[in-house]
Amino acid sequence: MSTHHHLQSGRRRLSSHHFLDAADDYVAGYAILGSANIARKLWKAMFMSGNSRVVCVASRDTARAQAFIDECQALLPFPQAPEAVEGYEAALARDDVQCVYIPLPTALRKEWVLKAAASGKHVLVEKPVGLNTEDVQEMIQACIKHNVHLMDGVMFMHSARLQLLQKTLPSLGPLRRINSEFCFKANEAFFQSNIRCSSATEPLGCLGDLGWYNIRLTLWAMNWYLPVRARGCLLKENADGVPYEFSGELLFESGCSATFFCSFLTHETQLAVLNGEEASVQYSDFVLPLPGRYLYFDVNHQSYPQEGLDQVVHSYSERHHVQEAGYGHPSSQEACMVRHLSDLSREGGGETTKWPEQMLKTQMVLDAVLLSARAPGRGVGGDGGRE
Amino acid sequence: MSTHHHLQSGRRRLSSHHFLDAADDYVAGYAILGSANIARKLWKAMFMSGNSRVVCVASRDTARAQAFIDECQALLPFPQAPEAVEGYEAALARDDVQCVYIPLPTALRKEWVLKAAASGKHVLVEKPVGLNTEDVQEMIQACIKHNVHLMDGVMFMHSARLQLLQKTLPSLGPLRRINSEFCFKANEAFFQSNIRCSSATEPLGCLGDLGWYNIRLTLWAMNWYLPVRARGCLLKENADGVPYEFSGELLFESGCSATFFCSFLTHETQLAVLNGEEASVQYSDFVLPLPGRYLYFDVNHQSYPQEGLDQVVHSYSERHHVQEAGYGHPSSQEACMVRHLSDLSREGGGETTKWPEQMLKTQMVLDAVLLSARAPGRGVGGDGGRE
Repeated sequence: MSTHHHLQSGRRRLSSHHFLDAADDYVAGYAILGSANIARKLWKAMFMSGNSRVVCVASRDTARAQAFIDECQALLPFPQAPEAVEGYEAALARDDVQCVYIPLPTALRKEWVLKAAASGKHVLVEKPVGLNTEDVQEMIQACIKHNVHLMDGVMFMHSARLQLLQKTLPSLGPLRRINSEFCFKANEAFFQSNIRCSSATEPLGCLGDLGWYNIRLTLWAMNWYLPVRARGCLLKENADGVPYEFSGELLFESGCSATFFCSFLTHETQLAVLNGEEASVQYSDFVLPLPGRYLYFDVNHQSYPQEGLDQVVHSYSERHHVQEAGYGHPSSQEACMVRHLSDLSREGGGETTKWPEQMLKTQMVLDAVLLSARAPGRGVGGDGGRE
Repeated sequence: MSTHHHLQSGRRRLSSHHFLDAADDYVAGYAILGSANIARKLWKAMFMSGNSRVVCVASRDTARAQAFIDECQALLPFPQAPEAVEGYEAALARDDVQCVYIPLPTALRKEWVLKAAASGKHVLVEKPVGLNTEDVQEMIQACIKHNVHLMDGVMFMHSARLQLLQKTLPSLGPLRRINSEFCFKANEAFFQSNIRCSSATEPLGCLGDLGWYNIRLTLWAMNWYLPVRARGCLLKENADGVPYEFSGELLFESGCSATFFCSFLTHETQLAVLNGEEASVQYSDFVLPLPGRYLYFDVNHQSYPQEGLDQVVHSYSERHHVQEAGYGHPSSQEACMVRHLSDLSREGGGETTKWPEQMLKTQMVLDAVLLSARAPGRGVGGDGGRE
C-alpha cells in the first residue's frame, strides 16, 4: 500500500535523523491504560514517532482491549502486535513498558499516575491533569520522588509552529491582549453518555476538556507568568454543575490581559489572537491543526492614516509557515510529543521540571477561574484590575 | 482630473438612481460645527452622498473655519463654496441649513444637540453621543419635541455588508458568543494633546471612542435586546480616570454572551467574530472597511471527525461579498449614512425612533460596563451569570 509505504519511509527518515547521535536503537515501550477514543490518535502518534511502540493495552475487560488492538493493528500494525492485558496494574508491572499513556477519566487519573510513578514508569497523561491543583501537586511530587517524567497531552506545545511563533513574538511588541476560543458543538449522544458530562468522572467539563488549551496557550504566550487576577463566568452548566460553556479573563502584571471562551454548545472554533503593541498574530487552528503539510499563523498589521479627506485603511498580513503535517504524520505535533517523551524516558533523558511546571500552572489558573465563577462578584487575586 | 470626473460620475449615477421616484431635486444643506479631523471624511461623504452639500463650517474662530473650507474645497470642491461662519449659533440660525453635523468633543455635544434641535435642524452627532444615558435621553427628547431626526455617526450601520450579514445570521444558528476588538496604538502626541485624553472633554476615553462600536455591533447582532448582565474592566486609565484600555463582557437572556476589547495602547485591530451553534462569522474590518470595491465577511465551518486512527480537521469558509467601496466613494458606508439622514430630513422623511433607540441602548450598555469597572467585584444586573 503506497500510503503505508510513504508513512514507513517518513518514519525511517525522521527517526534516523532524530537519532543521528544515538549509540543505540532505543525504542520506548508504551502501555495504554483504557481504550478512550483519543488513544487511537496516540497509537498512530507512537507509530509515527520513530522511537516508540505500543507494548500493551490494558483494560478491566481484556476483550475490549483486544478489540481496540485489533482495530488499530488492522489500520497501522506494529511489527510486534501489542498485547491485551487485564487490569491496569498488570500493565504497570511489565518490564518492557517504559512509559504509560493515561487517557482515563480525570477522576481516575491521580490514582493511576501515582501507581505508574511508583512502578517507575514515565507518564503521558491526558488533560485536565487533575481535579484540582492539590491533586496535580501530588502527582508531580510522586513523579519527582520516583524519578520519572510527567507530561500532559497538550500536543500543540510540541509543534514547530509554536517555536516559530516564539521567535516571532518579539516583533509584536509587548503583548496587550490574548483572545482565544475553543469550542465544539456536541450532539445529544455526547450529553447523554459521554464521560465528559458526568460530575463523577469529568467535573471540570468544557473547562478541563477545552479551556485547558486556552489557558495553556495564554500562559505560554506570557512566558509562564501567572496572572495577578483571574475571573471566570460559568455561562452554562448541567444539573450536576459540569461546565458546558465558560469564559475567563486573566490580568497579568505586565498590563497584558487575556480572554478565553470554551464551549460544548458552540460551533467548532479554535481561534487564537495575540494582540501586541506593534502587530497581531492570528490563527484559526491553535489546538487541532488544519490538514496539509504546512502549519501557519498570520501576523497582521493595520493602520488608519488620514490622506487628504480620506481616513485610509492600510492592512497587510505576513503568513508564517512551518513544514509540519496537521496530523497523522511523523512530523505532526502528536508524533513530536510522543517522540519527546520517549527521548526523555531514556536514562538521563533531561530535566524533569519543565512539563510539570506548565501543567501545574495551567491547573492553578483553571482552578482560579472556576473558583471565581462559583463565587460571583469577585475575581481571584488582585484589586479588581484597576491601576 | 480623471479621478474627479469618475467621482462626479459616480455621484450622478447614484443620486439619479436614488431619487428615481423623487419629484424634486432636494439637496440637504449641512452645517459642520467645528473642524475636527473626522469632519474631513464627512465633507467627502456629504459630497459623495448625492443629496447633500456643505453650506457652512462654523468655528469660534472664523479664520480656522475658512482654512478648513479652503483645504477641503481644494481637494473636493462643492460648486457653491461653503461659508465660514463665526460661532455655532450663527450656523444654526441659517435657513439654508437643514442638518447639523456635530463632531464637537463629547462634553459639548449635549448643549449643541439641544440648540440644533431647538433651531429645527436635524442632527448627525459623533459618538459617544453623550457623557451618560441621562444626557442622551435629554437629547432624544429634545429632538422628538422639535420633530427633528437624530442620528449618531456609526457608519457601519449604513453598510450593505451589515444588511447581508443580517440575512446570513440565521444560518449561524442561535448566537452563543460575540467577540470584537477595536484598537489603535496612539502616539505620544495623541496622549499629550488630543481631546480624547482629557477628562474635561472626553471622559469616556477609548470606551466612548472605540468601545461604542463594539457595543453597537453586539447589540445589533442581538437584535437590540439589552444584556441582562454587564461587566467591565478598566485595564488602563490615565491619571484623570480617562479609559485607555477597556474590556467588557455582556450576558444576554438567550444564553449568548459577548466580550469586547478596546484600546488606545494596542496595535490597530478591528476584529469581529460571531459564534453561532452552526457556524461562525469573522471579519477584520468591522468599523473601518479595508480599501477596494468589495466588502466581505467569512462564514467559517470546522469539524473534527474521527476517521480511522486520525482526528481529522475539516474546515471551509464562504466569503460573502457586497459591492461597496471601503471609503471615499458614493457607495461607501459614510456616504450612505449621510444620504440616509438627508433623505430623512425631507418633510415626512420617516420615523424618528430607530436611531435614537440604537444610540440610547449603546450608551446604556456603555454606562453599565463603566459602572461595573469602577465598582470592582460586581457586574451590573443579573445574578452572576450562573444558570
